[in-house]
Amino acid sequence: MAKKTLFVAFAILMIGSNAIFAQNSVFENIFNRKSVRSYTEQQVSLDDLKLLVKAGMAAPSGMNRQPWEFVIIHGKEEMAALSQKLPNNRMLKEAQAAIVVAGNPQTSHYWYLDCSAATQNILLAAESMGLGAVWTAGYPGVERMKAISDAVGIPEPYLPLCLIPIGYPKGEQTAKDKWKQEKLHINKW
Amino acid sequence: MAKKTLFVAFAILMIGSNAIFAQNSVFENIFNRKSVRSYTEQQVSLDDLKLLVKAGMAAPSGMNRQPWEFVIIHGKEEMAALSQKLPNNRMLKEAQAAIVVAGNPQTSHYWYLDCSAATQNILLAAESMGLGAVWTAGYPGVERMKAISDAVGIPEPYLPLCLIPIGYPKGEQTAKDKWKQEKLHINKW
Repeated sequence: MAKKTLFVAFAILMIGSNAIFAQNSVFENIFNRKSVRSYTEQQVSLDDLKLLVKAGMAAPSGMNRQPWEFVIIHGKEEMAALSQKLPNNRMLKEAQAAIVVAGNPQTSHYWYLDCSAATQNILLAAESMGLGAVWTAGYPGVERMKAISDAVGIPEPYLPLCLIPIGYPKGEQTAKDKWKQEKLHINKW
Repeated sequence: MAKKTLFVAFAILMIGSNAIFAQNSVFENIFNRKSVRSYTEQQVSLDDLKLLVKAGMAAPSGMNRQPWEFVIIHGKEEMAALSQKLPNNRMLKEAQAAIVVAGNPQTSHYWYLDCSAATQNILLAAESMGLGAVWTAGYPGVERMKAISDAVGIPEPYLPLCLIPIGYPKGEQTAKDKWKQEKLHINKW
């Protein structure tokens, strides 16, 4: 079947405090993404979770080695068990699902950079679907990694970069404006 | 001035080989992004480069420490000088601009993860504007980092995660389909 695509791009000229910004829906989504830590009881479908992982696998990786693996956790009982195993991760109490992004250090020495790009794809994709998500750390914390690996059954030599709790956002939340002119250097530092 | 936003989201049901995928323009952009290594002579405006950096600064960071800094290099002479200083980076011969993403290890022990998320935002934003870009490595390579730092004048203690050559793509290029079912684990590895 032919791939049906419809891409809508548009520009909004906006006079901001710093510059004239041309925006499209991709920028809009990047600026709207926020870390969501509280979720409603609405379930997240497995198809939607797979889509998020598909977005993750579309990330770039050094020498295209794709050193990543993804674990989807979903289902009421499975999430309750995960929350019990990782009591310090308070987001898991409400989350309807989670994705663990793990990497193979034997496939790439900088698997954690590739997996970070994959994670950012997942967070942006979640925002675009009206889902809320947040990056909670594994790597480089040795204890955090062990806790996640034990909870999800990640075998050696794989290491978890992060665990992403996911659900539909509870309440209204707006993204922070993190633009800081002083962090931008032009042609020299 | 009120922020004008218009967000167009839509779903396309597509029967693929693996699953039913619901797509929107954000997913479309994620799947269309590719590493572009050859560029036309069309210049990239400074406003567009600043927009890319603005997208970078919208990334999440551990404890919201935002340990990143960004250097835009643009202009014919500046790019020629950069290409001479970094002869191993062959993309710089044609690139019209570059962005270096650097981090402060004193601000965050995992600055390189935060900077990777920022880099992915930049790559996705570039794709959405019809620009081509590619992540070329700095961290963790000691020599690569030194070469970039020397070329761009990055002061201690900052370290460059990557250098992103940017330009309008030369020729047609399509993204790879990197979906691999065997890298997805559901509820257990």
